[in-house]
Amino acid sequence: MSLDAILARIDEDLPRATDRLLELLRIPSISTDPAFKPQCEHAADWLVADLRSLGVAAEKRMTPGHPMVVGHVNEDGDGPHILFYGHYDVQPVDPLNLWDRDPFDPEVQEGPSGKVIRGRGASDDKGQLMTFVEACRAWEAVEGKLPCRITFFFEGEEESGSPSLVPFMKENMEELKADIALICDTGLFESETPAIITMLRGLLGEEITIKAAKRDLHSGMYGGVAMNPIRVLTRIVAGLHDDTGRITVPGFYDGVPEMTNEIIAQWDDLNFDHAGFLGGVGLSEPAGEEGRRPLEMIWSRPTCEVNGIWGGYTGDGFKTVLPAEAHAKISFRLVGTQDPSKLRESFRAHVRSQLPPDCEVEFRAHGNSPASQMSIDHPAFESARKALSDEWPNDAAYVGCGGSIPIAGYFKSILDMDAMLIGFGKDDDQIHSPNEKYDLESFHKGTRSWARILHALTT
Amino acid sequence: MSLDAILARIDEDLPRATDRLLELLRIPSISTDPAFKPQCEHAADWLVADLRSLGVAAEKRMTPGHPMVVGHVNEDGDGPHILFYGHYDVQPVDPLNLWDRDPFDPEVQEGPSGKVIRGRGASDDKGQLMTFVEACRAWEAVEGKLPCRITFFFEGEEESGSPSLVPFMKENMEELKADIALICDTGLFESETPAIITMLRGLLGEEITIKAAKRDLHSGMYGGVAMNPIRVLTRIVAGLHDDTGRITVPGFYDGVPEMTNEIIAQWDDLNFDHAGFLGGVGLSEPAGEEGRRPLEMIWSRPTCEVNGIWGGYTGDGFKTVLPAEAHAKISFRLVGTQDPSKLRESFRAHVRSQLPPDCEVEFRAHGNSPASQMSIDHPAFESARKALSDEWPNDAAYVGCGGSIPIAGYFKSILDMDAMLIGFGKDDDQIHSPNEKYDLESFHKGTRSWARILHALTT
Repeated sequence: MSLDAILARIDEDLPRATDRLLELLRIPSISTDPAFKPQCEHAADWLVADLRSLGVAAEKRMTPGHPMVVGHVNEDGDGPHILFYGHYDVQPVDPLNLWDRDPFDPEVQEGPSGKVIRGRGASDDKGQLMTFVEACRAWEAVEGKLPCRITFFFEGEEESGSPSLVPFMKENMEELKADIALICDTGLFESETPAIITMLRGLLGEEITIKAAKRDLHSGMYGGVAMNPIRVLTRIVAGLHDDTGRITVPGFYDGVPEMTNEIIAQWDDLNFDHAGFLGGVGLSEPAGEEGRRPLEMIWSRPTCEVNGIWGGYTGDGFKTVLPAEAHAKISFRLVGTQDPSKLRESFRAHVRSQLPPDCEVEFRAHGNSPASQMSIDHPAFESARKALSDEWPNDAAYVGCGGSIPIAGYFKSILDMDAMLIGFGKDDDQIHSPNEKYDLESFHKGTRSWARILHALTT
Repeated sequence: MSLDAILARIDEDLPRATDRLLELLRIPSISTDPAFKPQCEHAADWLVADLRSLGVAAEKRMTPGHPMVVGHVNEDGDGPHILFYGHYDVQPVDPLNLWDRDPFDPEVQEGPSGKVIRGRGASDDKGQLMTFVEACRAWEAVEGKLPCRITFFFEGEEESGSPSLVPFMKENMEELKADIALICDTGLFESETPAIITMLRGLLGEEITIKAAKRDLHSGMYGGVAMNPIRVLTRIVAGLHDDTGRITVPGFYDGVPEMTNEIIAQWDDLNFDHAGFLGGVGLSEPAGEEGRRPLEMIWSRPTCEVNGIWGGYTGDGFKTVLPAEAHAKISFRLVGTQDPSKLRESFRAHVRSQLPPDCEVEFRAHGNSPASQMSIDHPAFESARKALSDEWPNDAAYVGCGGSIPIAGYFKSILDMDAMLIGFGKDDDQIHSPNEKYDLESFHKGTRSWARILHALTT
């Protein structure tokens, strides 16, 4: 086989590959909002059809939530058995008024540093998952078949806590078990430096509702006398961090390791642009725990963030209401061996202990995944690192990741399969935000990277 | 003239009076939401036509906001010149899902303690203002004319801070000045005990927006490192009260008087049902300043309440976003000589002093009125008290009022005119809340009360 011919094929097919991605981006597969259920199914159908066009035996597999897409090729082939994972669902798009265009009417735009593909899901994760699919398409076009046994596994619930994922993996263990899993849902370290992830933070999500009076009250009649649940909620939320930025939930830091000097030295060598990282979003000072640098905080420290808060009158004008309820969505990023189930109970007890008389609290669980540590001594890691280094200006770096991609942990714990996370997103992709984009260069060189990695893993 | 004949006429006309009120309640005149501007104008037109049917020279008078309705009758008549004030605008209706029926499709329902008129504005203030109009209608039907010179003055911005009121009063001082103003926008002391208001709290409203990063961020990538404006907002809001319930804005208690022992004794004589007041809305313990009883808190103590809070993702499911902004609507009820303009500056400085690096705050002013003290030595007060005592099972009480009705202060400061506040609302009317109602008995006996008061003031 000729890697050069495959790379050339990727280069010449880029316009058509981009059109295919735009087609997938037009499907508003927002998994967290039940109103978009048919659109999630539509995205799954699109992927099944696309995989079949590559000779992959692909199927839509129903779950109680959104469907999985599973495809197999070369089931009796030689060489390693690779599983590739991505997700076809996307984040909600609000606040819609901050988008420059319809989030689901994507286009290629000229950006300040090259062309970008603008639209919800362009980077997270449709653009990323299509880099692997396009690499396979070029391979198949040049060689007539794919280089090894590959299982494609796409889910549609990654942005909404993946409720069907673990049951589905447990029911289909035999079918999904491979020699290694490749996951494309992460970023470059910097524009010219690709990255392979060595550690991922876990995630614990909780929604809390504080209730006081049995109905909304008029503040002229009850203000000052009746318990205001917004006041209770803000006290509890404000108290989740102490003045040094540490999280106050009892037992929260159990299982949080300090990084070794060796790891810290390795991270220092990366010369991360801390000021540029914050400056890029209009900030100048790190807001987290005192005495920790941003890279260390993002990769190795646990966090607590309020992702949403609401209660009372939030429309135009003013309404002197004391609401009956107030709400917050709170998430914790976890590291080391922090136990999400134990912390959920500890958080709930901590909230309950602060309730004043006449108040009740209701909790709703969202997401629950421990942190993961990758097995970088698996030989695939060094092969992939070399292959990536051939494609990009700088050598690939082993890095931590602040995000939570629980699938890596599940592959290990359920299927005893190592996972390698490689992706081509950039810090300014605005994933989960208005005006999400994916650099056309990320898409193009990402596709070429996967061709090189497949070549490295199979020769 | 015969008061008995007028009261009898009110009794027999009640079904038609109720139908007229239902018609007015069907007009969704929500003043705070610009989308309802035409409906506010429609309510003003309805009142103009209704007043004209009583022989009143009524007009809709335009303002930069919603129109005023002004009507005159008996301009050359003998006796006192009375101005009657009410407001035709209503509060917003959200949360709409907590209403048992369309808020603007009102009906008379059988309640546990008698018939009620259910719908937005039934009590605040359309039902109340129509008690006076219906008393006039009966008077006119029986006597052929009204008993004295009366100016009707209805505004459409009371629920949205009355921005046009002061300029309009200043431009039309001659026209609006009367011997006394009657205002119907308050409540009974208890079901069988009518009340005349002796003091009203003032109101200061502020909307604050905390801004941090220049766009929404992904908490996996920036969580812990980037300033979260919800965290900043909750710290500021939670810190507005200390642990004893006192408000922490510097200088806040300047001008807050302690009630005299005489007033406290008079309030004790009212035997207010503190437990029932809280128990009626599902609460058991007063939440305000330590050591103050509910009645004292509501009538004579200043407050700070958060009426709305919002930021980040508030929809179904979960989104691990760090928002760029977080917002709160905060209002203060004022007493004594607390200066709203000074306190607004003090509040803003207090908020600014707590901003961490990289954060900005924007303020939006909503409402600004000092507290008022009524001139109960005006002879009309004692006449009205006797008239009310004739209609109701118990004698009328002189009471404080926790709500803010700035118009009373403006009548005094701009027109040098005393105001008497008498109303027939009940604590369980759910004004500003879902399922607002007005007891049919309040409407009926309220109308009869005004006939008695008009009689007492003009004979």
